[in-house]
Amino acid sequence: MAGGIRVINGGTVTSAKGFEAGATFAGLKTYAEDKLDLGILLSREPATAAGVFTTNRLKSPSVVLTEEHIADGKAQAVVVDSGIANACVGEQGYKDAKAMTAKAAKHLGLKPEDVLVCSTGIIGVELPMSLINAGIDHIKVTDDGGHLLARAILTTDPKPKEIAVAFDLNGATVTLGGITKGAGMIHPNMATMLCFITTDAEIQADLLKGMLKEAADESFNMMTIDGDTSTNDTVLVLANGAAGAGPISEGSEGADLFRKALGQVCVYLAKEIARDGEGASKLIEVTVEGAKTLQQARSAARTIAGSSLVKTAVHGNDPNWGRVVAALGRSDAEVVEEKIALYIASVCIMEDGRPIAFHKDSIIAIMSGPEVAFRINLNLGDGRATAWGCNLSEEYVTFNSAYTT
Amino acid sequence: MAGGIRVINGGTVTSAKGFEAGATFAGLKTYAEDKLDLGILLSREPATAAGVFTTNRLKSPSVVLTEEHIADGKAQAVVVDSGIANACVGEQGYKDAKAMTAKAAKHLGLKPEDVLVCSTGIIGVELPMSLINAGIDHIKVTDDGGHLLARAILTTDPKPKEIAVAFDLNGATVTLGGITKGAGMIHPNMATMLCFITTDAEIQADLLKGMLKEAADESFNMMTIDGDTSTNDTVLVLANGAAGAGPISEGSEGADLFRKALGQVCVYLAKEIARDGEGASKLIEVTVEGAKTLQQARSAARTIAGSSLVKTAVHGNDPNWGRVVAALGRSDAEVVEEKIALYIASVCIMEDGRPIAFHKDSIIAIMSGPEVAFRINLNLGDGRATAWGCNLSEEYVTFNSAYTT
Repeated sequence: MAGGIRVINGGTVTSAKGFEAGATFAGLKTYAEDKLDLGILLSREPATAAGVFTTNRLKSPSVVLTEEHIADGKAQAVVVDSGIANACVGEQGYKDAKAMTAKAAKHLGLKPEDVLVCSTGIIGVELPMSLINAGIDHIKVTDDGGHLLARAILTTDPKPKEIAVAFDLNGATVTLGGITKGAGMIHPNMATMLCFITTDAEIQADLLKGMLKEAADESFNMMTIDGDTSTNDTVLVLANGAAGAGPISEGSEGADLFRKALGQVCVYLAKEIARDGEGASKLIEVTVEGAKTLQQARSAARTIAGSSLVKTAVHGNDPNWGRVVAALGRSDAEVVEEKIALYIASVCIMEDGRPIAFHKDSIIAIMSGPEVAFRINLNLGDGRATAWGCNLSEEYVTFNSAYTT
Repeated sequence: MAGGIRVINGGTVTSAKGFEAGATFAGLKTYAEDKLDLGILLSREPATAAGVFTTNRLKSPSVVLTEEHIADGKAQAVVVDSGIANACVGEQGYKDAKAMTAKAAKHLGLKPEDVLVCSTGIIGVELPMSLINAGIDHIKVTDDGGHLLARAILTTDPKPKEIAVAFDLNGATVTLGGITKGAGMIHPNMATMLCFITTDAEIQADLLKGMLKEAADESFNMMTIDGDTSTNDTVLVLANGAAGAGPISEGSEGADLFRKALGQVCVYLAKEIARDGEGASKLIEVTVEGAKTLQQARSAARTIAGSSLVKTAVHGNDPNWGRVVAALGRSDAEVVEEKIALYIASVCIMEDGRPIAFHKDSIIAIMSGPEVAFRINLNLGDGRATAWGCNLSEEYVTFNSAYTT
């Protein structure tokens, strides 16, 4: 655990002081077992806010509107539906996103501009606004509603993903909590994933935004499920200052702790998404070190973690390191073959660019666990990065062959 | 059929005059049903030669040596093994590649520098040179040995891929023949694929090289099986002038016909590779038109054809056009949502960026065939490109989960 940061048992997005959440069944998510599909996250007091958003050129109007509402660095609530993505529906999409924020604002007694909106699910279908309007009226936000909201944002994810961490600052306890949803289409630069993080720290919007960007680059943007990215990806963070620990300013001990805590929350949630990928049963962790630059290390780690051949090899517990090397070779990272070292877990499989005899059955046994780690040292510089992915299974194919039909 | 170009029934890489081929079982390819795994392609007379090669940074030394031997624009033979890729084996790889060309040269009565060498198969295993040396001695090249060679270069491909075309020029018949192997790891910029093309046209090496590059960019570099690229990809063309049609010079009618014929051979073979992808049962063809530039059209077509979610949707005959649009949005192509039109086969599914009601069962029926075509018009410019891929099936996963083990 990074310096003084502790994980809160059963923590969630309402663990930080002054946050409430709730969810209901509006009737949008007919294909999932858990029918909760509409939720609200609220900060009782105005909060500073920051977000990072999909880089897909075809953005959901929900994302467009949220970017507008968050531009002033302030927000107090998020309304979110799962089941329908509100993407590729023409002008109506923006109108519906606006109507959703207006309705939620009225329900909560806020201004629409202080409400953010997220949607995830099927593309090309209009939001059923009467169901949504009726649903919003039914949502009751409570102090421990984070668990409900964590369920309500899921689409095809098998399970909710939640965490909260805390650290002491100026005699007070600062808490950060987060929830996320992922499943299919998760890929660097944030596929159909939503992540909501809350904190009772007091922190300026610009500093918060910079830290969130950094944390996302090392977590959500380093994971891949299937190489696809979506129209709706959003990571939001709200900071309401309710902890009473005083303002966190750049360069302070508080900033240091907060940055670490935010990074920890993001990495935890990103790994949970990868582990929970469609049809996935194993987490793949790829660390590339010794790259010429950080960017090259990231490219190499992501390329390997996202390779279909690596993913199927992991699925079959097959120590087929040739596929790892082939993926490395097509990434943006400079490589010198004679300098490459490759490890599966802690076992060296290749050194100085040449395979080393290994006991195959031992490696197969190591690879049979729920987490498979590859480490590659390029021995060319200081660039180091870790990426996460999951095995590619028959279930992924079966599942994704019959989604809308 | 492009102007005056006809397909030769049962054509192959030895259909052009003056080419011979042969193959044998050397004992390298223990995992395939067809045990032919070592072959030779020979031009009876010296030929001009050109090649395009993998862009993977970790290249097989067989590729490195072939690039050296072809640098003078001349070659007379190719020796090729399937089963072992001769990649990631340290210095020995280059020595073995040299020894293979020397051995084949001796067997054929040529200089080693006029022999090119290709390897495909498992990475990280040294070539068993005594098996290869013995095997080369057993190879008898013949006029119709192309069919044998087409089998001998396969690794996991279900079936040989061969074609020959011909056209008339100056009272003579010019023939082009080609064979290829692909299967897994096929991706733009030429994954584990080998392609050998021969022609009895007389053409200068530089012109030949330029035309090959163009043809490869519109065929092999526009197809994707699983997004991975390999250490060994090679496309070679040998032109020996035996047709007696006189030299083909840039700008002439002959150059026009030859360019078309070469393009036709490459596109045919590329599509056959996609159709024959590991676990594949359907060819996906994605045409993007109206892009701002050719490069943007290519990026969009390739991104869509390579999307795991599109590939699984095709597998399940699922008209999930939202996935096509999401893939489009993350490609390098500029898009204006309100201008996008999308067709499955000839049925318009989206116009002006908005979904159009369609009869789902009809589209499902259309998608149930062996070829599924998507056409996207971005309505922004003249850029147009076609890419090919295949469905992602449970069989792909099963197959690739147990390759080396």
